[in-house]
Amino acid sequence: MEIEIKFKVDFNEIKGKIENLGATLIREEVQEDLYFSVPLPKLLRIRHILNLGEVILGYKEIQDEKNEEFDEIEVKVEDFEKMKEILIRLGFGEDVWVRKHRFVYKLDDVTFELNRVENLGDFLDIEVIGGDVEGAKGKIWKIARKLGLKKADVESRLYQELMREKREATLQ
Amino acid sequence: MEIEIKFKVDFNEIKGKIENLGATLIREEVQEDLYFSVPLPKLLRIRHILNLGEVILGYKEIQDEKNEEFDEIEVKVEDFEKMKEILIRLGFGEDVWVRKHRFVYKLDDVTFELNRVENLGDFLDIEVIGGDVEGAKGKIWKIARKLGLKKADVESRLYQELMREKREATLQ
Repeated sequence: MEIEIKFKVDFNEIKGKIENLGATLIREEVQEDLYFSVPLPKLLRIRHILNLGEVILGYKEIQDEKNEEFDEIEVKVEDFEKMKEILIRLGFGEDVWVRKHRFVYKLDDVTFELNRVENLGDFLDIEVIGGDVEGAKGKIWKIARKLGLKKADVESRLYQELMREKREATLQ
Repeated sequence: MEIEIKFKVDFNEIKGKIENLGATLIREEVQEDLYFSVPLPKLLRIRHILNLGEVILGYKEIQDEKNEEFDEIEVKVEDFEKMKEILIRLGFGEDVWVRKHRFVYKLDDVTFELNRVENLGDFLDIEVIGGDVEGAKGKIWKIARKLGLKKADVESRLYQELMREKREATLQ
């Protein structure tokens, strides 16, 4: 199980704080995610990590109402366009694109995904992998408080939903 | 477009004839194909090539009534089990397994796939890739006749169908 809480942040300010905590930058990714129209709680996307030349097919099932607990399966694939074509031929429609520049930090078993998301702003996902959901959330909140983050900073909508709302607002 | 005609053959006899034609053995594959339940004319399978350690997600659309013309998209994936799990979670059911030992020969733009298929017997697929369907079929039949193959040797059922019929016969 992937336990993850998303916060709306100020990119530069939070970046400094994460580094001050002693977390290590483990990689930088320029991601282009194409989400397909799959009914919630299921999510289906192809992620193209442009700077690393990687393509990952990702499937998630949301396990809770706050979008903090996910059952996730990811598999690397060789080619973005071919994978996309297969999904479209199987009947999955393209929903939205989410493009971001991500800095990934690690501190023990906590992962920080600091994202500058095109058209949406800056977000920090704090993530722990494990079976003990409450323990993981406690760990995430302990770190979040050290970074000065509060309940009011939580963004419980998915990137896919935020992007979809953005698109609908633009169309009106 | 993939144009392919399948013949029921005697493995050793036809192998000698293909080699006598001057075709070159380009690879040998031990394949385990898992087909999913997708309504015809669509086909969806994950192919595990055991001896090469490769996994390929394959999607085909049959373009004709004789199962000789296919629109095909294939993409390499990193892991068989994860790909399978994603397809199952997306609602695709497992249909049949087709296991075969394949010898692939090439002669100019003609590909010979000589298959020893578990529980089904020996088959030769003669394949040409191209847009000119009639030209491709002419080329395939010219070669087939040189190998002593006749219309009566054609097997127009798909491996997936043959395997399904086998399973149903076993269950009766």
